[in-house]
Amino acid sequence: MNESTVARVALDDPFWGRFRETVTREGIPYQWKALNDQLDADAEPSRCMRNFRIAAGKEQGEFGGFVFQDSDVYKWLEGVAYSLRWKPDPALEAVADGAIEEITAAQQPDGYLDTYYIINGLDRRWTNLKDHHELYVAGHMIEAAVAYYRVTGKRALLDAAIRFVKHIDSVIGPEEGKLRGYPGHPVAEMALMRLYEVTGDPMHLKLAEYFVNERGKSPLFFEEEDARNGNGFYWKNSPFRYQYYQAGRPVRDQKDAEGHAVRAMYLYSGMADVARVTGDGSLARACRTLWESTVRRRMYVTGAVGSSEYGEAFTFDYDLPNDTVYGETCAAIGLVFFARRMLQLEPRAEYADVMERALYNGVISGMQLDGKRFFYVNPLEVVPEACEKDAHKRHVRPERQKWFGCACCPPNLIRLLASLEDYVATRSGDTLYVNLYVGGEIDGGALKLKMETNYPWQGDIRLRVTEAGDAPAAVALRIPGWCPGWTLALNGKALEPEVKDGYATVRRAWRAGDALSLALEMPARYVRAHSRIREDAGRVALQRGPVVYCLEEADNGGALHCVLTDTHAGIDAVYEPDTLGGVVTLTTGGFREPDGDPDDAPYRFGDAPETRPVRLRWIPYYAWANRGVGEMRVWVRA
Amino acid sequence: MNESTVARVALDDPFWGRFRETVTREGIPYQWKALNDQLDADAEPSRCMRNFRIAAGKEQGEFGGFVFQDSDVYKWLEGVAYSLRWKPDPALEAVADGAIEEITAAQQPDGYLDTYYIINGLDRRWTNLKDHHELYVAGHMIEAAVAYYRVTGKRALLDAAIRFVKHIDSVIGPEEGKLRGYPGHPVAEMALMRLYEVTGDPMHLKLAEYFVNERGKSPLFFEEEDARNGNGFYWKNSPFRYQYYQAGRPVRDQKDAEGHAVRAMYLYSGMADVARVTGDGSLARACRTLWESTVRRRMYVTGAVGSSEYGEAFTFDYDLPNDTVYGETCAAIGLVFFARRMLQLEPRAEYADVMERALYNGVISGMQLDGKRFFYVNPLEVVPEACEKDAHKRHVRPERQKWFGCACCPPNLIRLLASLEDYVATRSGDTLYVNLYVGGEIDGGALKLKMETNYPWQGDIRLRVTEAGDAPAAVALRIPGWCPGWTLALNGKALEPEVKDGYATVRRAWRAGDALSLALEMPARYVRAHSRIREDAGRVALQRGPVVYCLEEADNGGALHCVLTDTHAGIDAVYEPDTLGGVVTLTTGGFREPDGDPDDAPYRFGDAPETRPVRLRWIPYYAWANRGVGEMRVWVRA
Repeated sequence: MNESTVARVALDDPFWGRFRETVTREGIPYQWKALNDQLDADAEPSRCMRNFRIAAGKEQGEFGGFVFQDSDVYKWLEGVAYSLRWKPDPALEAVADGAIEEITAAQQPDGYLDTYYIINGLDRRWTNLKDHHELYVAGHMIEAAVAYYRVTGKRALLDAAIRFVKHIDSVIGPEEGKLRGYPGHPVAEMALMRLYEVTGDPMHLKLAEYFVNERGKSPLFFEEEDARNGNGFYWKNSPFRYQYYQAGRPVRDQKDAEGHAVRAMYLYSGMADVARVTGDGSLARACRTLWESTVRRRMYVTGAVGSSEYGEAFTFDYDLPNDTVYGETCAAIGLVFFARRMLQLEPRAEYADVMERALYNGVISGMQLDGKRFFYVNPLEVVPEACEKDAHKRHVRPERQKWFGCACCPPNLIRLLASLEDYVATRSGDTLYVNLYVGGEIDGGALKLKMETNYPWQGDIRLRVTEAGDAPAAVALRIPGWCPGWTLALNGKALEPEVKDGYATVRRAWRAGDALSLALEMPARYVRAHSRIREDAGRVALQRGPVVYCLEEADNGGALHCVLTDTHAGIDAVYEPDTLGGVVTLTTGGFREPDGDPDDAPYRFGDAPETRPVRLRWIPYYAWANRGVGEMRVWVRA
Repeated sequence: MNESTVARVALDDPFWGRFRETVTREGIPYQWKALNDQLDADAEPSRCMRNFRIAAGKEQGEFGGFVFQDSDVYKWLEGVAYSLRWKPDPALEAVADGAIEEITAAQQPDGYLDTYYIINGLDRRWTNLKDHHELYVAGHMIEAAVAYYRVTGKRALLDAAIRFVKHIDSVIGPEEGKLRGYPGHPVAEMALMRLYEVTGDPMHLKLAEYFVNERGKSPLFFEEEDARNGNGFYWKNSPFRYQYYQAGRPVRDQKDAEGHAVRAMYLYSGMADVARVTGDGSLARACRTLWESTVRRRMYVTGAVGSSEYGEAFTFDYDLPNDTVYGETCAAIGLVFFARRMLQLEPRAEYADVMERALYNGVISGMQLDGKRFFYVNPLEVVPEACEKDAHKRHVRPERQKWFGCACCPPNLIRLLASLEDYVATRSGDTLYVNLYVGGEIDGGALKLKMETNYPWQGDIRLRVTEAGDAPAAVALRIPGWCPGWTLALNGKALEPEVKDGYATVRRAWRAGDALSLALEMPARYVRAHSRIREDAGRVALQRGPVVYCLEEADNGGALHCVLTDTHAGIDAVYEPDTLGGVVTLTTGGFREPDGDPDDAPYRFGDAPETRPVRLRWIPYYAWANRGVGEMRVWVRA
């Protein structure tokens, strides 16, 4: 193996900068209000911070929200930490410190910290690892604590997290007298690996390893737990059963991405972390198997995963319905986590291709351009009337919501967008892998680079060496899978470097001022789905660079199922600075079947309806539903 | 208005004869076993007859099955009555008499008869008209009683039903001190109208009228009932709410076919009966409105209705998904009931067209050719793996089942198929309307005809006058909506009669021996759906005569979404006596996209896949799933 570490990056990018500004200016304050129940009356209340105050004895009341409600503030805090990293803000830091005080005030003397059980009775804690999310909450606490410590140097939350982990280790594990359990909802695995990076405490590594390796072993802990609790098993008659939790069998025996998609992505991410740090080859192979299943047979063209609302879950190979899809924002985010960790296991551009696909499409589609409303579900085809009147599509919303009772997605978006620099580049030995083309300064150790680009709207990337050591080093530039042709020049002279595993690699003794120019051809092109994807048969999508496009009713009228695009005609691409925050729109030729039939008969004999030529205007998928409610469609008849 | 009565017919038809033989030979004995829990262990037990014995105090035990379990034997008895009409069978009649003895032994002194409440406590009876089906059970009892009396002359069940109705009338109605309720599941309306035909008792008419007119009035009885019972309202958050029961508003204010599809069809049928007998124009208009909504905007090409499993219900206009459809067999049967009653309200061939569409497709698809297995749900597109692994398609089964816990459909099929003669012809004044082309003898009063045909495989129909009165009379022959051309001859001489409302009418003084020959052109033709039906965009169905066709994996391989039919090439039709009980199969030219992609990438840029020419073999839709489990598709890419 060829493990990599994440290269430090200071991001300065027009595309992502706007998202980050939005997150910092709108998302973080907005979500803090949400966590404190200060949104408008029509938003669902969070009760998150109130639960901590009640748990600390500062307020009277009942626990509110889901069993995992605590995690919302942890994800928010993690996002705040990343935001402070790129944009220091003493006022925001003071708010965060205050939140941490509220949180730690609720911690129990033995280190336990989950307001649901503190409020409802500690005697029942650790009795339902399968569904009650204590380890999930702990995981997010750790993630927040590590991030906040790394950025601010403040240890309050970190120490509290370490105490909580110590308590967990005293209760759960393979040793006699402990619960042989593991998380019902993974995240603690990757969180503990991050904690281990900071603490170097072998217990933290050991616990993460145990969680991964114990999972799904027979006799099944979750089954025993249900028996102890006298609980029925909710997923008994589901196709996935314990695979809902990715616990139907040991992780190395799992061949397909199954069950709840967010849980799956988080587990696989933790597995990849453990495999990398421990050098466990069989675990790395398991990651690769699950990766292949996920991205080759169960992923949408937008990077969305999770085909069904039932269980928010995967279904089966090539089953990718566009209109009843789940495609939870958190699952696409989880796919980004997984992809970055696979990149760290082995530098192959295919991982970064998927990471990029999710980021520019199915992740950021989760947020309105103003940062104030969010999608939980990210469909590829919407007919608003169906969302209202067809029970199987009611999880699909035609417009983003202000907040959710189960508010996992909005803070998850914040923490990802605020930490985007951690996904740009990785280092392995003397090679710096540039995985995403995002403007900023890359700290590759002795070699420091400045990257400038107008990606994803243009394919030109300029890399300038700002510092270099004496020893030769390599810069490996990802050639995206979508790119049909490219050129590379060093200080104005064409290079023809070898391309291996999707990276064009230039190795030399660098000098400050060296300039690499990568020009990626970025034509808009039609995408065709694998022949087994039933729902896309006879249809095409349109993609330019990493950006997947869609048709919206706002531009093209309704009844988008009556629209055909002409794949033989040209595609015009125009950057429109005033549209949707500045996007390249695409225009194609096409045809439209008439709406309605002469006598309005439901069925008739005869020829295909006569079509009329139309111009179709496509916008980036991520920006849909920013101009009111209407139809939308990614896969269009060809 | 121009009301019609049903003409008596003695059926003798090769196509329907086989179905009837199957029903009599297999279905009736098989279902009697089912009602008595004598099927194999893997079939769901019925408990139906056992409930009657327990209610009569002959056996100990608890009530088993659904609250409406009694209705299964009533539907079976009704089917037996019709079977005895065309094929007397003393042994079967003795079994039926025995069943009637078991049933009447459970009747209470006050006339009440519903084993659920007799067993579980009479103090709770009539407290949940909305969901507990007492009036539904009563309705089916009446239907069976009338049918059995008409065929055998035996009054035992009829008298018991009259006693039950008398009891109902003493408890429910608009008068002070009575419950102002009506059926949660309609059927009593049309049943009472049939009882009224036999008894002439104005109370029977009045009660039916009351049920129709009271329905949906404000304050809503069902809402008050829920409040009294302290029940939550299960459909509170559904799109249809009380329209699930077609009780959201008075029937004359209902503009769309909404809610539970079987309930809707039964209610509309009862409304049409009441409108015809009372001459109520506003009620007739309401029927017409609901008819239009049903058949013009919410019906599948197979005559199936009910787009969604959620609520077994209608959704919205032109929302007709082929793979998640409900299309309950009982709902298609209900559409036949409704259509015949609309025909009786006004003789327009469009009603018979729909009746025929449902009968030859979505009704008989519910039964295996051997009469031993049944579909509850009748999909137009099936991928077996999806039925197993996609929760939203688990109601769709790729093969017929032996029996159901909720066994409404099998006995409903029996009673319809055994009474098919009641759908063939109607009489109004001196006109005999021939609505279905089915061999047999038609008793049109003074005019008696013998009809011979090999319909639906051939379009030639021969009608010979066997008796005629002195006065002139008219024979009105339906020209089916699917028919592109026809000729008519009287005693060998061409006629060109006027066609009005879809009937070619010949009026004359008939003489025995007169022979009418109708030749309907019956080419196989492609069908296109209304442009607003999203799921059928870019696709065609194939129909020949009234028969809708489908592709099955057994003939064409799997991955039917990769198959295109060539609508410009010819269609070969061949009668195959040894296939599926004898059917006309169709063969078309077509194309198949390759299965799989070169590197198995989920998405690729580039041209449409190269297709290879194939011959496609189509079979009648009703006969699908008689040759093992596989894919099936009605709407095929064109």
